[in-house]
Amino acid sequence: MKKYFKKDEWNIVEEGFHPDENRIYESVMSLGNGHMGIRGNFEERFTGDGLQGTYIAGVYYPDKTKVGWWKNGYPEYFAKVLNAANFIGIDLIIDDEVIDLAKTKVKSFKRILNMKNGYLKRKFTITTSSNKEFNVEVVRFLSIVDTELAAISYKITPINCNASITFTPYLDGDICNEDSNYNEKFWLELQKNVEKYNANLTMKTKKLNFIASTSMKWCIHEENIPINSSISVLENEKFVGNKISVSAEENKSITLYKYISVTTNRDYDDEDIVNKANERVKYAYEKGFESLFKEHASAWETRWNNNDIVIKGDVEAQQGIRFNIFHLYQTYNGMDSRLNIGPKGFTGEKYGGSTYWDTEAYCLPFYLSTANHQIAKNLLIYRYNHLEKAKENAQKLGLKGALYPMVTMNGEECHNEWEITFEEIHRNAAISYAIYNYVKYTGDKKYLADYGFEVLTEISRFWASRVTFNPYKNKYMILGVTGPNEYENNVNNNWYTNTMASWNLEYTFDVIFYLQKEHPTRFYELTDKLNLSDPEMCKWKDIIDKMYYPHIDSLDVFEQQDGYMDKEQLSVKDLSETDLPLNQNWSWDKILRSCFIKQADVLQGLFFLNDRFDLETKKRNFDFYEPKTVHESSLSPCLYSIIASEIGYIDKAYELYLRTSRLDLDNYNNDTEDGLHITSMAGTWMSIVYGFGGMRIKDDMLSLNPCIPNVWSKYSFRINFRGHLIKVSVENNIVAIEQQNGSEFNVNIYGENYTIPSKGEITVYKR
Amino acid sequence: MKKYFKKDEWNIVEEGFHPDENRIYESVMSLGNGHMGIRGNFEERFTGDGLQGTYIAGVYYPDKTKVGWWKNGYPEYFAKVLNAANFIGIDLIIDDEVIDLAKTKVKSFKRILNMKNGYLKRKFTITTSSNKEFNVEVVRFLSIVDTELAAISYKITPINCNASITFTPYLDGDICNEDSNYNEKFWLELQKNVEKYNANLTMKTKKLNFIASTSMKWCIHEENIPINSSISVLENEKFVGNKISVSAEENKSITLYKYISVTTNRDYDDEDIVNKANERVKYAYEKGFESLFKEHASAWETRWNNNDIVIKGDVEAQQGIRFNIFHLYQTYNGMDSRLNIGPKGFTGEKYGGSTYWDTEAYCLPFYLSTANHQIAKNLLIYRYNHLEKAKENAQKLGLKGALYPMVTMNGEECHNEWEITFEEIHRNAAISYAIYNYVKYTGDKKYLADYGFEVLTEISRFWASRVTFNPYKNKYMILGVTGPNEYENNVNNNWYTNTMASWNLEYTFDVIFYLQKEHPTRFYELTDKLNLSDPEMCKWKDIIDKMYYPHIDSLDVFEQQDGYMDKEQLSVKDLSETDLPLNQNWSWDKILRSCFIKQADVLQGLFFLNDRFDLETKKRNFDFYEPKTVHESSLSPCLYSIIASEIGYIDKAYELYLRTSRLDLDNYNNDTEDGLHITSMAGTWMSIVYGFGGMRIKDDMLSLNPCIPNVWSKYSFRINFRGHLIKVSVENNIVAIEQQNGSEFNVNIYGENYTIPSKGEITVYKR
Repeated sequence: MKKYFKKDEWNIVEEGFHPDENRIYESVMSLGNGHMGIRGNFEERFTGDGLQGTYIAGVYYPDKTKVGWWKNGYPEYFAKVLNAANFIGIDLIIDDEVIDLAKTKVKSFKRILNMKNGYLKRKFTITTSSNKEFNVEVVRFLSIVDTELAAISYKITPINCNASITFTPYLDGDICNEDSNYNEKFWLELQKNVEKYNANLTMKTKKLNFIASTSMKWCIHEENIPINSSISVLENEKFVGNKISVSAEENKSITLYKYISVTTNRDYDDEDIVNKANERVKYAYEKGFESLFKEHASAWETRWNNNDIVIKGDVEAQQGIRFNIFHLYQTYNGMDSRLNIGPKGFTGEKYGGSTYWDTEAYCLPFYLSTANHQIAKNLLIYRYNHLEKAKENAQKLGLKGALYPMVTMNGEECHNEWEITFEEIHRNAAISYAIYNYVKYTGDKKYLADYGFEVLTEISRFWASRVTFNPYKNKYMILGVTGPNEYENNVNNNWYTNTMASWNLEYTFDVIFYLQKEHPTRFYELTDKLNLSDPEMCKWKDIIDKMYYPHIDSLDVFEQQDGYMDKEQLSVKDLSETDLPLNQNWSWDKILRSCFIKQADVLQGLFFLNDRFDLETKKRNFDFYEPKTVHESSLSPCLYSIIASEIGYIDKAYELYLRTSRLDLDNYNNDTEDGLHITSMAGTWMSIVYGFGGMRIKDDMLSLNPCIPNVWSKYSFRINFRGHLIKVSVENNIVAIEQQNGSEFNVNIYGENYTIPSKGEITVYKR
Repeated sequence: MKKYFKKDEWNIVEEGFHPDENRIYESVMSLGNGHMGIRGNFEERFTGDGLQGTYIAGVYYPDKTKVGWWKNGYPEYFAKVLNAANFIGIDLIIDDEVIDLAKTKVKSFKRILNMKNGYLKRKFTITTSSNKEFNVEVVRFLSIVDTELAAISYKITPINCNASITFTPYLDGDICNEDSNYNEKFWLELQKNVEKYNANLTMKTKKLNFIASTSMKWCIHEENIPINSSISVLENEKFVGNKISVSAEENKSITLYKYISVTTNRDYDDEDIVNKANERVKYAYEKGFESLFKEHASAWETRWNNNDIVIKGDVEAQQGIRFNIFHLYQTYNGMDSRLNIGPKGFTGEKYGGSTYWDTEAYCLPFYLSTANHQIAKNLLIYRYNHLEKAKENAQKLGLKGALYPMVTMNGEECHNEWEITFEEIHRNAAISYAIYNYVKYTGDKKYLADYGFEVLTEISRFWASRVTFNPYKNKYMILGVTGPNEYENNVNNNWYTNTMASWNLEYTFDVIFYLQKEHPTRFYELTDKLNLSDPEMCKWKDIIDKMYYPHIDSLDVFEQQDGYMDKEQLSVKDLSETDLPLNQNWSWDKILRSCFIKQADVLQGLFFLNDRFDLETKKRNFDFYEPKTVHESSLSPCLYSIIASEIGYIDKAYELYLRTSRLDLDNYNNDTEDGLHITSMAGTWMSIVYGFGGMRIKDDMLSLNPCIPNVWSKYSFRINFRGHLIKVSVENNIVAIEQQNGSEFNVNIYGENYTIPSKGEITVYKR
């Protein structure tokens, strides 16, 4: 943990130049708009350490997965998020000196991510070898209004001299994924074109035939007035650019505006995408930087008006939550049901594949509460559309029903570690839980008849074929699994997995009863389609009745898995600083046989099935497991924070809140350089709304049970519940609820029901 | 299981041409001489399926180990047995038609591995497109007298025509390992030279700077008379050869003799190896094919005279055991203490690294009994020399003492699957057991003072740091291991591992007592060097006293590991044929959660610690585990066969003997194409000598307890016990022991002591 950024409610500011930590700043300063994203790289040349990263949503590469020893059932490929053509590049030459911030003298430097309006700004002063000084100011954004567009304003001002300045705006497709084996390149040049004021570069992936076409146009101003320049054309393999030379006078700014469009054959026919890219960039160029920016910035303001969380009295906490909300919306906007939310979004290459159980378990609640319900529904439909592939996946492992992949781009499993791929089967329950959660929140029960029941049935079938009946104990067991705590592999009877599997079967029965009653025709249509029989359902019932749950009797807590208590029982505080993070300092076997917990496991179950456990049970389990948890998954502290709030451990909840909300900003797990933990950012949001806010849905009613950390004077959040847009404000023992949009409805606050008038507000005092 | 070869006591014969199964025949027909080896490839061009394989002992490649997700502590590289320059190649052109057995019409075909004299012969008849017919007879061998030399006699006879015949003997270094990622090549050309009658090709590995220099010379005869020919010189990248054209007359044979030498910088200085190669090949050329062959064949006869096992009444069983002994001696001759025994020897590329615990657990007894004791000692010294690296390895995992690598070339771990590399720690006990076994067999207790004790101490330290004390049960446990049965991963308290760890500590104490008494000065020197303290030894004692052993009380059998009985209890006979082998038909998770056993695990312990368990215990455990064992490790059936013999299950022992001895010949596990199971061949030998022969060493005395399978009328084996070369012959209830070399000594037979006179024989009848 280290403080990299100054406290600021709306901005993330790097003060001074930190080339040694550049990757960390690059990750944090990433921009994205759902369609594409770029890390906080420099426009001008930089030969220092960094990861030039440009990513396009839905464009990936099925890399060969060669491992030493193959396991039967492994997928053919390991999907990789694909680093695409660099479109921000603008080389800068002053009097024949190439500017390279790794070599050129940098006198002052500031890099600012403005979250309120969604742009990245850099302001720096450089001194050339002939002691000429220049101020540079660069602003760029990826439009959230026109997501195929990006624009850069690159302004340079000589301070103590005149100078000859050459800009080379370019498009570079000669890009290699950093995680590529043997530096294999994944893109081929398909076509290119470059003229004096515009250029296009169109690349195609070696596999799957993704095509991405990037166009650029530019213009150049002196003190806001267009000027003439000497222009030449550059063309190389996978590269197009212009070389533009102007004479700059002391104290007169020269600004190059670069407009970029990126189109892909995910959205257009192959033969159209170059034209579309050219058309789009022409539109941007004609509209101009200021107008484009204005509508982009204003769209961000609208978003914040609907979804902002305001915290008073704690700038770090405020900065943290906005940073999380900002990056979530940069990554996924829900417009495209073929897309999902990658753990690193557009901020890095790690965790290659796009979709994990993170989406269902962590991201769904955020989108449910902050956006139109169609967006959450799209996330569910994504899995519905992959049901056939999930069935094939189960079959490949010799099992029935559907096993959703651990990691996927298109519904196929694309990860190859047996202990994860084959054994981390709890992910299946998260898919079911998302359906439950969606219906509970939105009330859209029709979803069950239309889509949900098929998924629930096939997943139930999976569980029924995956359990082992133990006749000696008259119990069903689930052997050989990896739970959410991936610091245990191939264990028997992970409590969370067994609990969720049984819950899953129960919920399927709930849905069966509902459909039988409310949609009998559709129900019989579905049982027919699914070939669902009574004996099959009897087996499910038997499993529910006889599921085995490991338990530590002496402490009355759930046992994470069989044999957990045979481990040496230690606490994180017994560790020395040099041990942490364990995954960077301990060998894997040592981690596995230790009692230390990567992320919420038993507690994940207490969170999901919140209403099944009383406060004392939650407390006992929290008290036992929390001290053993190292939170080396980004998904961990948010969950613990929520439960800590619920059981009244506010200080602990606040400590964990800071950890989750500032995980990347303060680099808690020493891995911000790899990219940001996008999916856990939704968990951060939950740690306020579900945690401090105590929001739950019970019997179709919104319920709140707010508390507030000591250091905060006030906080507020906005949520959308079934068409009611409300703002919840919490001060010490006072809760105010304002309905900004929607009709009168009831809310349960601290256990009492209140009516919130349309466009009205109520205030409740905690007794 | 399939019968590929006809029954023959001394030969392995492929009758007819089987291009579709060529890889299987290639593996079986491999030749080797300890220094190098080649698969049973063809000299002339063959574009059909096959693996051209040429391997040189001790020459390997540290390949990058890229896997999807890295685990802390993984080695930097995965060692690969290196496929080296092909030196057997002789292209054949008849009247401008290139002969390629994948395309040329093959009228008859026979490939014969002659085990008695150690050569490979092919006899075939081909018909060219112009209907000319030719008989071809090719003989080759790798000299076991001059191990740097090989020779080929390639004879062709036109049957119904005259013809122009062109031979191209060549050396080809443009070789790619079949298991290379991305087809990376590992050899660079260092130098080459080609003249009319000789050529040299010298290659260097891209890493580690191994240099292998291959020279060839040739001559050509018509009907045994040297003849003139038109010769040209071929030179390409990594390739040298000669093109030799002659006119062949009907019914007159033309024979090309090709002599090859292979030298490496493992044996010579870099600057000498080319000269050495040229010198050696000149020697071979001058000696001539017949003389070279004669001394080679006669060396094989001497070997057989010392080590043959003769079985009467069962040709398949006879062929099987000779095949095993033959390949063992082809792979390792014990001359070079830097070498060890790779699981596939020189017959394939799988299992990259060279040394596994197979050496200590399976191969050592064979070399102990069939060769000079120095050879077995060399195998032990190999590990002694790697002690420092084993200590580094333990340290890397955060443990004390020494952890020997699972797979190694030079003492470093070179395998990267966490469940094996980090967890299959029982291998350490096998290193200790080999010391125990060597001393027990040879009586060379001085080895303990000179080398053994240091290894035992560091391994004991490892165990002491690897156990977990469970205060609730007042027991030491060993968590997170993989036992010999690799169809279980990351289990707790594998009975075998716990048992061997505790035995290991006990044996270390035995050695301490011995050294204290017999070599007190050396002992104090060693405790000083090793910094061995009383508290440390007290901890060892405590572990011995409180080790936990899983046990199935209801059946009174040892439990393979904690939770084994939670699995569904099935037998192999419950499986359908399409399930087997499991590792080719089931996904890994299904294998892991099944009760099926890959190889001897509990039974490995019963074998090693034979004298600790009574017959009834062995029977109960055999009866429980044998039906669950799929024997998908080559190391399995031999062990089960030995125990079956011991407990009187002779038919079962015989069935398992056939399986082990004909594993590769009959392709039981459907993997002969990958290469032969060399290390398990020593297990086959054990299944006769320890199994049917019932050989044990008790209190410095040789003890025998022979039985004989029903179908055999007689069998005999020869062993060397402490300087006594004896031949043991067994018929039904009759055992004859003949001392062929050595002084009078006592042997225990069926529980009674007998004196075997020098050069005399005794006969014992079973009561």
